[in-house]
Amino acid sequence: MGSVPRMPGAGRLGAGPAVGQTDQRLLVMLGLLWGSAAATSSGPQWPKPVFGRLASPGFPGKYANNQKQRWALTAPPGYRLRLYFTHFHLEPSYLCEYDFVKLSAGPTVLATLCGSESTDTERAPGNDTFYSPGSSLDVTFRSDYSNEKPFAGFEAFYSAEDIDECQVPPGEAPPCEHHCHNHLGGFYCSCRMGYVLHRNKHTCSDSNRQGGIWPILWEDVAAQD
Amino acid sequence: MGSVPRMPGAGRLGAGPAVGQTDQRLLVMLGLLWGSAAATSSGPQWPKPVFGRLASPGFPGKYANNQKQRWALTAPPGYRLRLYFTHFHLEPSYLCEYDFVKLSAGPTVLATLCGSESTDTERAPGNDTFYSPGSSLDVTFRSDYSNEKPFAGFEAFYSAEDIDECQVPPGEAPPCEHHCHNHLGGFYCSCRMGYVLHRNKHTCSDSNRQGGIWPILWEDVAAQD
Repeated sequence: MGSVPRMPGAGRLGAGPAVGQTDQRLLVMLGLLWGSAAATSSGPQWPKPVFGRLASPGFPGKYANNQKQRWALTAPPGYRLRLYFTHFHLEPSYLCEYDFVKLSAGPTVLATLCGSESTDTERAPGNDTFYSPGSSLDVTFRSDYSNEKPFAGFEAFYSAEDIDECQVPPGEAPPCEHHCHNHLGGFYCSCRMGYVLHRNKHTCSDSNRQGGIWPILWEDVAAQD
Repeated sequence: MGSVPRMPGAGRLGAGPAVGQTDQRLLVMLGLLWGSAAATSSGPQWPKPVFGRLASPGFPGKYANNQKQRWALTAPPGYRLRLYFTHFHLEPSYLCEYDFVKLSAGPTVLATLCGSESTDTERAPGNDTFYSPGSSLDVTFRSDYSNEKPFAGFEAFYSAEDIDECQVPPGEAPPCEHHCHNHLGGFYCSCRMGYVLHRNKHTCSDSNRQGGIWPILWEDVAAQD
C-alpha cells in the first residue's frame, strides 16, 4: 500500500549555556562559518513529519452503535497539531450527548461536535480548522446505542506544523525585546546593533554600559519544556 | 558559546508504491491504527532545523574593501528558505554596482541590494522578507576597493520553513482535484466520499464507475524531485 504516515519524533532541541561577554569578531566569524557550513553539512536525516488520517469505524459506511475510539496525537515541542474534517455526518443531539467527536488537550475540551450543521445546542465542524494549544491533541469518537439513519460518520486529516513563537496575539508580551527569530521547533532572540542580550535571553541592554558587543544568544523553546 | 545552529538535513521522504483497489475497511482500520500509533511511537529523532545568522565581515564594525563572501543555503525538498535583514547599511551606488548583497537561486537573481534606502536605481531590503523559490538560496556579499564612510554592512537571519503545496497563487491549477493535505516536507491528495483517486494521484473519479472505494493515496513532493 502507499507510504505510511510518519510517526512523531521525540527529539529535543538542546539549548547551550549562556554566552559570557565574547570577542565580537569571533562571534561574527562563527556567524559566517555557520552560514557557510549550513550549505555543505550533510547533517542528520530530515524528519519524518507527523501526519495522518482519522475516520469513524467503517467509514464511509454507516458507523456501528456503541463505538468508542480515541486517538492521542502528539507532536514534538515547538510544534502544534492541525486537524480538519473532509466529511462529517453524525447523529445530531442536544449538546451532542448521543454521538459526538470531541477534541481535547489534556483536561481542556476544545470542541464537541455532532450532526452535520451547527445549531444553538450542537456544533458541526463545517470548514473549521482546529489547532492544539500545545503539542498534543486527543480526538474521541463515540456513538450511542442507536444509529438508525445511515450516518457515515467522519473523516479527518491532521498534521504537525511549526509554532511561530514570534507571532503573539494582540495584548500579549512579545517573546523578545528587540528581534525574534522563529525556526522549526523553536525560536531565539537577538538585539539591535550596540545592544547585548541579557542573560534572560529576552531583553537587551546598552552594550556601552555593559562593555563589549554580544550580538546573539540562541534559545530553543524545546529546552524550556 | 551558545548552542550552535542546526545543520540542514538531507533526508528524503520516501513515497510508497501506488495502491491498487483495496478493501475500504482495511484502509480505514489502517487509518485508525496510524492515528493510534502516532500517539505511542517513539519514532525517529525530531529534526535539526535549518537556521542561522549571516553578517558582513567585521559586523557591526566597518566592513573591509574588496570583500567577497558567499553563503549557499539549502533546505530539504518540500521546504523553502526565509531570509530577512535586521541591519543593512552598505555603500549606495548606481544599480548597486559597487558594494552589494545579492540573493539568487541558481541562475535566477532574486534581489540585488545596497545603500540603506531604496531609490530608482538601487534597492535596500527595508523590512522585506525574502523567500527562495525552491529549497536553495545563495547569498553573496561584495565590497569594492573603497569603503570610505563607516558602512557597517549587514546582519541577516534565515530559517527553513515548510512549503504549503496546497496553497497556490491565483490562476494556478490546484495540486489536487478534491482534497489537498499539506504536511511538513510534502503533501498528498484524497477524494470526496464515493470517489477514488486516479493513479496520477491528483484527480478523482466516480467510484461506482471504477468499482471499490479507495479513499487515500499518499504522495510526497520530495519523491518528485
